[in-house]
Amino acid sequence: MVKQRIVIKLSGSLFNFDTQASQLKEYAQLIKKIGEHFQPIVVTGGGRIARFYINLSRDMGLDEAGLDLTGIMVSHLNAKLLISGLGNICYPTTPKNLEEISLALVSEKIIITGGIYPGQSTNATSALIAERTGAVKFFNATDVEGIYDSDPRINPNARQYDTIDVKKCIDMLRNENSMAGTYDLMDLISLKVIERSRLPTVVFKSSIENIEKLVLNGIHIGTEITI
Amino acid sequence: MVKQRIVIKLSGSLFNFDTQASQLKEYAQLIKKIGEHFQPIVVTGGGRIARFYINLSRDMGLDEAGLDLTGIMVSHLNAKLLISGLGNICYPTTPKNLEEISLALVSEKIIITGGIYPGQSTNATSALIAERTGAVKFFNATDVEGIYDSDPRINPNARQYDTIDVKKCIDMLRNENSMAGTYDLMDLISLKVIERSRLPTVVFKSSIENIEKLVLNGIHIGTEITI
Amino acid sequence: MVKQRIVIKLSGSLFNFDTQASQLKEYAQLIKKIGEHFQPIVVTGGGRIARFYINLSRDMGLDEAGLDLTGIMVSHLNAKLLISGLGNICYPTTPKNLEEISLALVSEKIIITGGIYPGQSTNATSALIAERTGAVKFFNATDVEGIYDSDPRINPNARQYDTIDVKKCIDMLRNENSMAGTYDLMDLISLKVIERSRLPTVVFKSSIENIEKLVLNGIHIGTEITI
Amino acid sequence: MVKQRIVIKLSGSLFNFDTQASQLKEYAQLIKKIGEHFQPIVVTGGGRIARFYINLSRDMGLDEAGLDLTGIMVSHLNAKLLISGLGNICYPTTPKNLEEISLALVSEKIIITGGIYPGQSTNATSALIAERTGAVKFFNATDVEGIYDSDPRINPNARQYDTIDVKKCIDMLRNENSMAGTYDLMDLISLKVIERSRLPTVVFKSSIENIEKLVLNGIHIGTEITI
Amino acid sequence: MVKQRIVIKLSGSLFNFDTQASQLKEYAQLIKKIGEHFQPIVVTGGGRIARFYINLSRDMGLDEAGLDLTGIMVSHLNAKLLISGLGNICYPTTPKNLEEISLALVSEKIIITGGIYPGQSTNATSALIAERTGAVKFFNATDVEGIYDSDPRINPNARQYDTIDVKKCIDMLRNENSMAGTYDLMDLISLKVIERSRLPTVVFKSSIENIEKLVLNGIHIGTEITI
Amino acid sequence: MVKQRIVIKLSGSLFNFDTQASQLKEYAQLIKKIGEHFQPIVVTGGGRIARFYINLSRDMGLDEAGLDLTGIMVSHLNAKLLISGLGNICYPTTPKNLEEISLALVSEKIIITGGIYPGQSTNATSALIAERTGAVKFFNATDVEGIYDSDPRINPNARQYDTIDVKKCIDMLRNENSMAGTYDLMDLISLKVIERSRLPTVVFKSSIENIEKLVLNGIHIGTEITI
Repeated sequence: MVKQRIVIKLSGSLFNFDTQASQLKEYAQLIKKIGEHFQPIVVTGGGRIARFYINLSRDMGLDEAGLDLTGIMVSHLNAKLLISGLGNICYPTTPKNLEEISLALVSEKIIITGGIYPGQSTNATSALIAERTGAVKFFNATDVEGIYDSDPRINPNARQYDTIDVKKCIDMLRNENSMAGTYDLMDLISLKVIERSRLPTVVFKSSIENIEKLVLNGIHIGTEITI
Repeated sequence: MVKQRIVIKLSGSLFNFDTQASQLKEYAQLIKKIGEHFQPIVVTGGGRIARFYINLSRDMGLDEAGLDLTGIMVSHLNAKLLISGLGNICYPTTPKNLEEISLALVSEKIIITGGIYPGQSTNATSALIAERTGAVKFFNATDVEGIYDSDPRINPNARQYDTIDVKKCIDMLRNENSMAGTYDLMDLISLKVIERSRLPTVVFKSSIENIEKLVLNGIHIGTEITI
Repeated sequence: MVKQRIVIKLSGSLFNFDTQASQLKEYAQLIKKIGEHFQPIVVTGGGRIARFYINLSRDMGLDEAGLDLTGIMVSHLNAKLLISGLGNICYPTTPKNLEEISLALVSEKIIITGGIYPGQSTNATSALIAERTGAVKFFNATDVEGIYDSDPRINPNARQYDTIDVKKCIDMLRNENSMAGTYDLMDLISLKVIERSRLPTVVFKSSIENIEKLVLNGIHIGTEITI
Repeated sequence: MVKQRIVIKLSGSLFNFDTQASQLKEYAQLIKKIGEHFQPIVVTGGGRIARFYINLSRDMGLDEAGLDLTGIMVSHLNAKLLISGLGNICYPTTPKNLEEISLALVSEKIIITGGIYPGQSTNATSALIAERTGAVKFFNATDVEGIYDSDPRINPNARQYDTIDVKKCIDMLRNENSMAGTYDLMDLISLKVIERSRLPTVVFKSSIENIEKLVLNGIHIGTEITI
Repeated sequence: MVKQRIVIKLSGSLFNFDTQASQLKEYAQLIKKIGEHFQPIVVTGGGRIARFYINLSRDMGLDEAGLDLTGIMVSHLNAKLLISGLGNICYPTTPKNLEEISLALVSEKIIITGGIYPGQSTNATSALIAERTGAVKFFNATDVEGIYDSDPRINPNARQYDTIDVKKCIDMLRNENSMAGTYDLMDLISLKVIERSRLPTVVFKSSIENIEKLVLNGIHIGTEITI
Repeated sequence: MVKQRIVIKLSGSLFNFDTQASQLKEYAQLIKKIGEHFQPIVVTGGGRIARFYINLSRDMGLDEAGLDLTGIMVSHLNAKLLISGLGNICYPTTPKNLEEISLALVSEKIIITGGIYPGQSTNATSALIAERTGAVKFFNATDVEGIYDSDPRINPNARQYDTIDVKKCIDMLRNENSMAGTYDLMDLISLKVIERSRLPTVVFKSSIENIEKLVLNGIHIGTEITI
């Protein structure tokens, strides 16, 4: 029987100049465990090394779309780090577009990839991948705890939502007043994709424990975006 | 000497079940004339035939990202119609992503393509192409006359802007009150790309005369988005 | 155990400007049922939308080989409609040449594709695919009931063959007297491929009922080409 | 100014287990000279080495379409031999399909390739290439002197045509009576392509002298197929 | 359960102008039997036909790196001969680089390929493939019986090693005094790859019997390179 | 007239976590100037960021051939940094193998790429590229001043060669006594390629001044390898 698919976006902050293999191995182990229950498609961000190459390239004169492509290339280097820790249960390459992802699915293996399209955040890309692969849920592991009613870095009384309707979320992002600090976390395209495909989504702080709780144990964490 | 590059987005409404070769030939002729002064990169929309395949595919059960890919495929069929009318002065195939567009540029020929990335309108794609090719201007030939301060289909007193700042434009789109009727015309991603790359852009009603006036004669038409 | 392979050519007449998803879904359901017994490779024709693009492209000045490529592209859009109705039991993309078909076979999934080579009808292409995939039978679902001893549209007494030897069939096509009306149906290259590979072939009128009878129930319909 | 294009099919008999570089260099030199006046697209046959691999592969159990692909692969090895003798004035790789040929044309260099599509002779492929590249003439350098009214190996009085109408030629091939000995030379698909595109074609015996006379000096040799 | 992988390099001497299908079929049968116990990745050499094309190409003026590519192309023709004799249990194409080999592994089928990288012998390529596929052993079927302490063609008292340490082997090759005659057999890059990956390797004379003994029955033959 | 080609290998040490755009821009400017006289093909190394990813990947369990591919991927990110500073006079992508390099040459633009084949140093790759492109000279910009008769880090009296015969150089490398410190600089494969193609080569310390002197002014620096 074909396993249900889920998409997990891993924050690029996991990949840094001082990243240790031990940390990544824990993630690889967790993904392996998840792979016993689901066919996970994991999307890695670019993180600081991406920003290093992007900044240097911008200074060299590279255009913004070109910079997006540079960031994508680094996110694939990051994805390959996780593939290295998973062996035969993982698809051996990082798909480069939605068609390659469709083909990779046929293997029924764990799939790990990076960004695929310029002009989109990896959040938006992950949501598109969730659509294309018929994923039952999109887990967005980010650098913040969830979605707040105002910027928690400014307002000490900011309240985190347990659940939020996607329409309200889009509205908030439109008005930019309360979500400023969490902008990267859930941008407009990804929200619109979530809305059009009625894709169940959770935004939460990335950690081994949190992913395990949410994905494997079904314990509520962070903010669930409802449709 | 290398010619300056411009990007022209052609509304998909040009391509329909009753489109005549005579109409397309006029466009081809015009593009040829433009090609004497610039290296134009023309991006065609999908139009009604795209919508026909998209609707049928949706009824068949295809996911939304898959539908985007279907629309992209039809837009390339449309692009090939124009290539057929241009001969050797035109790049012979329709590039499928930004890297293929970069390679096509080397030929110094006219380039005609369709949509390239799912999750994006052809407007957004055209703006990314403008970034990547270093285009000096983005001409967005649409189905409306320009950008209005309120929806002209509802408000008979709606006023069309001659020029509008990109920030104001983004703001209007965010609030969705005044631009509802023109939503397709200039979506948020394309505006953000225009903003980040300070890309001079004109939104205007697509016609042979208008493109000729604007691109070849430098006469102001429609709405110029300023940065 | 690997299933036996069969090739089914589906007449392009199924794909038209007024095609309904309900019709295509019936075909998808049938292909699914066939997939329980065989590994079917389904080849879709281009139909009227292909002819629309071909006529328009010809008027634009496209050469004949280029027109073949246009028709092939539309046949792949048609193929994708059926893929959309089949989900995970179907190979997710339409192979573009014989090598891609060989690779797709490895998945042991249902394969749906369109034309692949210019200068050949989809009949001939289907016969080549049958060769390359080691198919045990080639089902050619067409717009006519079978092969006649004279053109049934002219001669009211034309008699349909139950079986016909491939050599006689080639002979008739050579002389063009009796098969004029059915030329598209079984062209010379496909017959020669059938002959060289001793490929059992049935030519019959495309319908859900007929395909079901022939492929699933083994009831004789149309004309069997014997070697 | 872009040069006119011509297609030259070179008989595979040029490429054999005892072929000498000196012979091939003469051909390379001739192609170079032709390249000063035209943009030649040269298509090489497979010859005996192709037949060696085809026979061995058939004995191994390879299907007929697979054998076509084997022959194509050897014809590309042959094509590369000529490329090796031409240096920078020649496109550096052998295009694998019509799209790659279109892209190669952009270079304005001499193009040398082998067969491209299974189920077709290199004659037919060459005719399709002539269509797609807008070639003004198709020179088919073969192993016989031209087209005869009966098989010259049987009938000592067989008369060679100076010119023959393509319709008559197709007719003769259909009846197979008079063209038996020259069957490989001009098969039905290539004739139909020649007919549909009104492609001026000459069939003649391959030799340095003959190609030079015909292509460079415009002296009539062999049989001209008229439309 | 996934089978262990092994890499078998088959000497190009198997592929010659007088090679019979019967010989190759024996090899195909043997590979099939091996495939019941392991996932073999077989790498074929170019042999005499490669040398024929290489010599002719060199005479035509092709550069050395280009000659390497020519040899690689012929080795793939050879690989396809074996694929032809194996049917569905074999991956249908010959992977062209390490990434394609990784993707082919997913099929869990027997993989047969030729050389992949210029500037390397097929020995070195095979060792790299062994690394990339996590092969447990590298069987190098060559034209000599094993590795000797001096050139057996010169020194009648040359002694063949049963086992030899890779470091000693590298040393001997460096000094070139004793391995001259066996240079092709185990070149420096392949030895360095064997060393860096601690890859168990056997060098032995290629024959059906020897491969069977070594791979299937675990009987010691030739020289084992130890690390 | 086509410019002569040269290959310049740029030491990976140029690309580091603290690399400044200003440094890279100087190199880009120099390459631009060189491009007025030659068609340079520049090959960038991977440097420290490559080593960072390689070390982390090794700890994750990636095999050695996979690590080579990781290093290659980073070297292409480095190459793109230089491309970003060169604009239209530079080929827009980094070729991935010798065939793509051949195709890139056609543009007559400056070409910048990274490593291409696993199991080879970028020195060896650069030498192969020099062969394939018919380069008249190979400039190997390294981290040392040239080739010494003994390791200059150990022996204060080590003497740098002005010129050295390639055979002697291979010999020294074989014996490893005198070249230990410069091992990375000129490995055996690259020397063998230099030898087989009689490729004029200079090994010298990488700096703007040195490249300028050597390439543009023809002033002798470092060690010239003679054949």
